[in-house]
Order: sequence, then structure tokens, then C-alpha cells
Amino acid sequence: MASDRVFNFSAGPSAMPLEVLEEVQKELVNYKGTGMSIMEMSHRSKEFMAVASQAEKDLRDIFGVPSDYKVLMNQGGATLQFSSIPLNMLGSSDAKADYLVTGQWGEKAHKECNKYGIGQLACNTKATKFTTIPNKSEWKLDPSAAYVHYCANETVNGVEFSYTPDVGEVPLVADMSSNFCSKPIDVGKHAYIYAGIQKNLGPAGMAVGFLHPKFADGSKELKICPTYCSFKTTAANDSMYNTPACFTMYVMGEYLKYTKKVGGLQYWAEMSDKKSGMLYDAIDGSDGFYQCPVVKDARSRMNVPFTIMGGNEELEKKFLEGAKKQKLYTLAGHRSVGGCRASLYNGMPLEGVEKLTSFMKSFMDENRK
Amino acid sequence: MASDRVFNFSAGPSAMPLEVLEEVQKELVNYKGTGMSIMEMSHRSKEFMAVASQAEKDLRDIFGVPSDYKVLMNQGGATLQFSSIPLNMLGSSDAKADYLVTGQWGEKAHKECNKYGIGQLACNTKATKFTTIPNKSEWKLDPSAAYVHYCANETVNGVEFSYTPDVGEVPLVADMSSNFCSKPIDVGKHAYIYAGIQKNLGPAGMAVGFLHPKFADGSKELKICPTYCSFKTTAANDSMYNTPACFTMYVMGEYLKYTKKVGGLQYWAEMSDKKSGMLYDAIDGSDGFYQCPVVKDARSRMNVPFTIMGGNEELEKKFLEGAKKQKLYTLAGHRSVGGCRASLYNGMPLEGVEKLTSFMKSFMDENRK
Repeated sequence: MASDRVFNFSAGPSAMPLEVLEEVQKELVNYKGTGMSIMEMSHRSKEFMAVASQAEKDLRDIFGVPSDYKVLMNQGGATLQFSSIPLNMLGSSDAKADYLVTGQWGEKAHKECNKYGIGQLACNTKATKFTTIPNKSEWKLDPSAAYVHYCANETVNGVEFSYTPDVGEVPLVADMSSNFCSKPIDVGKHAYIYAGIQKNLGPAGMAVGFLHPKFADGSKELKICPTYCSFKTTAANDSMYNTPACFTMYVMGEYLKYTKKVGGLQYWAEMSDKKSGMLYDAIDGSDGFYQCPVVKDARSRMNVPFTIMGGNEELEKKFLEGAKKQKLYTLAGHRSVGGCRASLYNGMPLEGVEKLTSFMKSFMDENRK
Repeated sequence: MASDRVFNFSAGPSAMPLEVLEEVQKELVNYKGTGMSIMEMSHRSKEFMAVASQAEKDLRDIFGVPSDYKVLMNQGGATLQFSSIPLNMLGSSDAKADYLVTGQWGEKAHKECNKYGIGQLACNTKATKFTTIPNKSEWKLDPSAAYVHYCANETVNGVEFSYTPDVGEVPLVADMSSNFCSKPIDVGKHAYIYAGIQKNLGPAGMAVGFLHPKFADGSKELKICPTYCSFKTTAANDSMYNTPACFTMYVMGEYLKYTKKVGGLQYWAEMSDKKSGMLYDAIDGSDGFYQCPVVKDARSRMNVPFTIMGGNEELEKKFLEGAKKQKLYTLAGHRSVGGCRASLYNGMPLEGVEKLTSFMKSFMDENRK
């Protein structure tokens, strides 16, 4: 029941729409009268193939994926993708790739590239503690790079690109794990977009990819690429070279159906603007009681990190405890940065953010000296 | 309801115990009063960490895993493991490893090794169409091999080792994907055991590994090993270096609890013997109407391939259609070998095999010329 629900601000895995969960629950033991659970079905069965192909069709429709692009679904999350990208896109071990590093995830992606080729830093905002996105004039782009990689939204640091980086003719690669399905995107400007789905589109255990056909023929694949990671193999087998994460794929499919019903990416974009706007207003209007370390034009609509009284750990602890009593859960910042963080993915209703900002106001009134 | 269930002989994903499915369904929207679904929980939350550590504890108890062994849980199935094994166990790219190839999965594992080192064929039964396991006297074992790999049960071909191969001092590696959790195993005789869980222990999307500590310190890891595939990284982070397949892990945990309740591996072993014995008796007692291509001492208790009238495709099609009408599902052989195949994993009740053998008898009576 809706009244039993807490408001879960987890950075991922994260809140999902109740309607999706209830549909999954209803069908769990006996999927549409087949006499078996979706978890029990052969991935080659007629019934499951219909689920998988509908999910791909809905991804293509909702995201406007160009028809010649391949849709990939793989296990291993963004972390395995960090390896798969150089393994499938460098072409040779002496090739170079550019990385725009604006947070901890981009940093990991860059590091992984150096196992297989030469990962170059086109920018790196570590000196600002990952609170900014430099202007393009400051990027050091190499026109001979095999690709340029950026992380569209940094979950830990709360930094989001509000635009598609213009990198000229060099293939553009985006990690969209934590803002995928939160706004319309220009797929055709990217050579590869990938995203773990456990933020805005389902449970953990699968990543979706949209791949330009140029990288689906294996011509840039290194010989040491694990077969599981091969873009060519995945594309040629419709993401079923081996057994896929069937149940996860099915739940994503239900989430996609729900997305269509409520109004597609435009709806999620409006909701995200509204929810994040409300929270940033509460922070910025607190006269410094709450502070977000990220500069305004790089702030994420998905993950909102904030400190209390300039990083007062005692107050932050009190805040988290008080919030939990109001059914406002999982508001601690990432282990590596501390403070607080509210993640506002699609599964978080507006009501949850209203309740959070209202609690923030009363907590401030009680604790400001 | 139990009466709605079909008997699903799928080779994986496959039938699960109804009681496990019903428990998962009950808890799906609101896990134990937490106000959220297990799919929505942060993998670092207290509640989910309890689920994950209980699952590991139950794996250790049920399988008798030596306390110094590491338990690994990874996405990507056995296919990604085929790469991870040489990447973590060869030590160098000029090292050799022995492969006992007794079916299509072992063949794939062997092929993958050659990307990273020298995969040697200690035996290969392809000439018998993978219907045998040669005696040890015929194996060409190299005492300097980094490891010996075997596939304990070949799902496609229906070939199963009924014993642990004796390979002396060389580390032994087993792919147990399709007979894991079907009988007690001697973990301590293996350097590494791995298994996709979608046969006898849960839904698709995760593989479990039991690793000797010698291979958990990274000393044999190649530099090109993707971080996601690193045994060292996985072990050091309790399989949570990045977001794991949380829901899949939870369902496996429920399956493990059920396994304990019914009597552990001994119970599954007795059931497997009984079910497969009944089916092989029906085949062998059919005076050649049904035939299993696998020699008796290499026959699998999990996957029983058989032909009808020496491979009469018309009759086989009629058989599959008739079976479906009796709620006996997914009995076609693997695309690559044709014929019929019944998989008898833990989720298949004895009643299903009784119904199958009874149908086989009446089909034979009607169609024998």
C-alpha cells in the first residue's frame, strides 16, 4: 500500500514507481497465464522473446534511437563498460582517447582506459573537488583521439552536463547511468551512450547501450576483448549471446511502459526540474545553513549533495536521524565525500521532495544558532 | 496457485520451487516492513547488507566452503567467467592451462583462454559428438599447467562428471553452472568453482564462485584484466566493488533458505537421482523408440537429451506438441543438436517427471510402428 511507503532518496538502487512494483508483484508467480514466473522462462521462449523485443522497441521509441543504431543490454554495470569501451573502440593499444573528468565515475573510466591504450585527460576538475564543469575553451581535445568520453551526471559529486558536449568529428561516448531516462537526449550526436538502469529505469543488474553501427562490426575491437564484452557479439546476437538478466530486463520493460503512459522523457524532465528546483531553492534560501558545493550551472537534477552549517558532522547526523523519523530515508552523502545527498530519480514522487524541504526548514529553524 | 503451474523442463532459466516464488512475491513491494522493495534498496543499506551476508553464510554452510576460501558473486554468467579465469589465474600471457573438453561449454571456455595465454586440450570428445568422458588414462595433463578446467555438467550435451577429476597438484577449476546445488561437492579439491545460478538456485543474472585464497591476492592477475573481472577486487570488496545484482542475490538467498529447510544438498542429490533415474529407465526401457546418445557412465542427472525413432523429426515435433497439451513445456533439444531434452533441476517436482514418463509411454504406444 502507498501509505506504507517511505521516501527513499538512495543514489541507486533507488525508488521505483509503486505502480510498476505492483504490476511486477501481480505477475511474479504466473506471468500472464503462462503457468510460470518470468524468472523461470527460457530466454529463447516465445513469451520471453516478446518481452525482450518489446523492451528494445520501447527504448527505441522513447529515446528516439536512430534506426541504424544497435541497442545493447549487458550485465556488469558501468564498471564493466569502462573496460568494454576501450576494448571495442580504441582499435589498437597505441590509440589515444580523451576523457572529460568531472567526478569520481569519469575518473574511474579514465583509469580503466589506460589498461588498454592511452587515456588522456581533456579536463579534470579534481582540484575543485569535482564541483564544476569547465568551459569548452579549457578542454584539451585531441582531434586524433579514438573517442571522447564524458560522464553526463556524476552521482557522487552531483555534477551534471546540461548540454551535449561538442567535440567535432571525434566519436562521443557518454556514461548516462544516473541521468538516463530523465530528459530527452540527442542519441545521434553520440557514438555510444551507456547507462546502468538502477537509477531511473529499474533494478540493478543491467546496463543499456545505444551504439553507432560503425562500432558494431568489430573493426575496432582489440583481440583481448572478452567475448562477453564484445559489442559486435552482443549486437549480432540481440544481447542474447548468453543468458541475459531476464527478470531485470522484464522489470525495465514495465518501467518503460509506465514511462510511455505518463508522457515519456518530457514528463520525467519536467518532474526532475520541479523536484530539483524545489530542493536547490530550499538550500539557496537557507542563508548558508544548507550549502551545495556545486556551482550553479553544473548542478545535477538527479543527485543533490549538501552540507549543514559548513559541514557540521554532529548536526548532519542529527539531521539524518530526524529525517528517518519522518520516513525520509537514505540521505547520507557518499562515503567518500560525507555530508548529505538527496537523489531525486524518477521513482521519487514530488510529495517526497515537498516533505524533505519542509523537514529541512523546520530542522533549520530549530538548529540555527 | 500450484494448480495453475505448468511443468517447465527448460535448460535455464528454469523452474523454481513454488514456495520460493510465493515468498518473493509476498515481499516484493514492501520488504519486511521497510517500506520499500528489495529492488529499491541501496546495496550499502543495513537491510540489504544483511541479505547479502546471510546469502554468503548460507552458501558457506550448505556447500561446506573452507573458511579461507572467498565467495564471489558476479554478473555476466559463465561466459564472462570464461575470460576471468585465464585473466586471474594464468599469471602471464605465455602460461599454459589444460582444458578437459566434454561438451560445448567446455569448448567455449577453452577457446576464450587462447585470447590470454595457451589453452591446451587435455581431452576433447567432439569426435564422439560429446557423448562420453574419457578415462583419466587418456587425458594429456601437463604438470606445468597453471590450472586444469573442466565443465562438471554439459547442459547442451547432457554429459556429467560423477566424480571430481584427480589432477594432482595442478589447481582444478570447475564450471558447475548446471549441476551446482544438485549434490554435495568437494570444494577443497578445487582452486575455483563457478556457477551461473539460473539452473538450480535462482533467476539469471549472477554467477557464484568459490575461490582458493591463493588466487585472491592478485598475484596471478594479468594487467589487462578488467577491474570488474578481478578476483582480487571482487574478493576484497565482498562482491560489492560496484552495485551488485541485488534482487538476484536476494532471490538466491531465499532459494538457499529453502534448500536448508528441505535437507540441503543431500536432499537435492536424492531427488536428482530419483528423477533422472526414472527418465533414463523410460528411455532405456523403450526398446529403442527413445534413445539417449550419451554413454551410461557419463549421463547427466540434470539434462537428459533424447531422440525419437533414431531422430525422426516429424515424430519429435508431434511429441513436443502433444507434451505441451499435457502442460509439459520446453522439451526441445538445444538448437545446435536438435531432438528432445528434459532438464530436471531442483525446481522440477517429481510429479513433473512422473507425468513426462507417463506421457512418453502413451506416445510410444500410439506411434510405434
